[in-house]
Amino acid sequence: MPKKKNTTFNDIANYTGFSKTTISRYFNNPDSLTLENQEIIARALIDLDYKENKVARILANGKTEFIGIIIPNLNNHYYSEMLNQILLTYEHFGYKFLVFIGNENEDSERQYIQELLAYNIEGLIILSFTIPSKELADLQIPIVTIEREDQYVCSVNTDNYMGGVQATSLLARHNCDVLIHINSPTAPEIPAYGRIQGFLDVCTEKDLKHRVIFRVLGNTYEQMQENLNEILEELEQEYASQKKGIFISSDTHANVFLNLLIKKYGKLPDDYLIIGFDDSPIAREAAIPISTVGQQIDKIAYEAVSLLVEQMNEQKKRKPEPLKEPIHKVITPILLRRDTTEKAD
Amino acid sequence: MPKKKNTTFNDIANYTGFSKTTISRYFNNPDSLTLENQEIIARALIDLDYKENKVARILANGKTEFIGIIIPNLNNHYYSEMLNQILLTYEHFGYKFLVFIGNENEDSERQYIQELLAYNIEGLIILSFTIPSKELADLQIPIVTIEREDQYVCSVNTDNYMGGVQATSLLARHNCDVLIHINSPTAPEIPAYGRIQGFLDVCTEKDLKHRVIFRVLGNTYEQMQENLNEILEELEQEYASQKKGIFISSDTHANVFLNLLIKKYGKLPDDYLIIGFDDSPIAREAAIPISTVGQQIDKIAYEAVSLLVEQMNEQKKRKPEPLKEPIHKVITPILLRRDTTEKAD
Repeated sequence: MPKKKNTTFNDIANYTGFSKTTISRYFNNPDSLTLENQEIIARALIDLDYKENKVARILANGKTEFIGIIIPNLNNHYYSEMLNQILLTYEHFGYKFLVFIGNENEDSERQYIQELLAYNIEGLIILSFTIPSKELADLQIPIVTIEREDQYVCSVNTDNYMGGVQATSLLARHNCDVLIHINSPTAPEIPAYGRIQGFLDVCTEKDLKHRVIFRVLGNTYEQMQENLNEILEELEQEYASQKKGIFISSDTHANVFLNLLIKKYGKLPDDYLIIGFDDSPIAREAAIPISTVGQQIDKIAYEAVSLLVEQMNEQKKRKPEPLKEPIHKVITPILLRRDTTEKAD
Repeated sequence: MPKKKNTTFNDIANYTGFSKTTISRYFNNPDSLTLENQEIIARALIDLDYKENKVARILANGKTEFIGIIIPNLNNHYYSEMLNQILLTYEHFGYKFLVFIGNENEDSERQYIQELLAYNIEGLIILSFTIPSKELADLQIPIVTIEREDQYVCSVNTDNYMGGVQATSLLARHNCDVLIHINSPTAPEIPAYGRIQGFLDVCTEKDLKHRVIFRVLGNTYEQMQENLNEILEELEQEYASQKKGIFISSDTHANVFLNLLIKKYGKLPDDYLIIGFDDSPIAREAAIPISTVGQQIDKIAYEAVSLLVEQMNEQKKRKPEPLKEPIHKVITPILLRRDTTEKAD
């Protein structure tokens, strides 16, 4: 693999008869040359098969066009689809992405951020939840977070409260005898807490019998299965022969719960309605397609990069005016009715 | 967001009383200074809160520590998990990853490669299948491909032939009356063709009644469902009351097929055995856990980066010796027996 020799400014200067300073001005401030001279140099670049060296350009203008991303993992369907959609914004905005997997390890993530800063990234998108937003704000570079504590930094989140209201209202319309919400213990400052508040408000307003079950459900399929099976046994005893409307915090968990029922009854029994959250692929791929509150991941990703680009453009001005307050955008979720709520009627 | 002023070589020179040339030598060739002077400068860096600027270092030594990745998409579980594992190798090798989604668009992918080359990436990992390996080899930078046509470039692939043999032998041990392999039409130069060859060789060797069904199954769940339902109807007619061992080319497809059977019978009937390929999350999350040929994605990712690092290190030598022939590593798959083959006995 012999190395190709790259064309240098020297080569272009010799070829055109201009000075190296003139060639440099062509790249950094072309309008300072006459149109005629610009054309001569442009033609020389073609003749010499000149390849742009972005690293050299970064030196000239200090802008890398890099955005750093820290994401907890890609096993989770929600994260992998979010990264997919963020990377696709290259077509629109032209920014390149340096990606790190955080794995919920706070110290590694701090190290990754230092590594990214050393490469002069222009902005940072954070999906991990380990580092407090105060500490992120102190980095003093443009930052956008997605679905995490965001008091001191800009963010884009799903309207989780509206999602909770949509799911609960759908179950209420089906005249369930009792509404159940299953979730992990969630702190009120996390955007996803809105799902719980939305559930509680609808139940209170419509005076519906309801219950919230907080349970750590685990990370592996086997742990989730064991914990959700315990919950299922409780519900079977306590609400036997009552019509149960179940709103579960994610499609992954809703699918495990559904599989437990199918294993027991060979189908989804008439006294169970199930709705999940996210619109992960698993919601459609389940043995019975699962109703869900769909997050508009493409829209969230686009708005996140767009909000970051605004801040990065501001930084390029001679006198950047920092945001007085962080901006928080919310994206509307979309209710998707499938067989786990619609077949029972 | 006021910008922090970065410490420059000038600041360090003024603080220590050394010349800028000496400071530069400290970073690029520290052993050319006395230990004492190295210590004086090291202490000054701490006092001045000096932040390393990698872009400046790249200028000094020309090495970006960037690896470019082109991956078709992240909707597919196999690709997202592969990217996950590749990114995690940062902990071991220290290389940073610039990631592009190819979306099976040849022209976009060529443009992404040009963009990556402009950033002086040191190597390239290709998971997309649009650009021929001959064209990739002509880029004359270190390249490793994963599971695609690889005649002219280095690659890491699963031992697909062994996987086909493992799956087929398992079905054969369960004394099926007929063995069926369902796959998309696959060209013999694609590594995954080995699965088909493995199936055929075992059937021929053991003189088993068998059939290969090639069918374009589509990209959406609904298309896969429709096409696999047609195949199911054919099998039900042609092999009624015979014990059918079914080897399907991916877990995603195996899950759709399983769901069709559950919808029809409320369970997996005793005359069906199913085995998939990949060990995607869906294989465990299915209503009945699906037996599969597991790809060791963590190992494939590690070996791919490792093979790339060897080539990149060679490029850093004063007289790099190019590989005479591309290296192709194969990783052993692991048979995972779950309920879709083990309950029937």
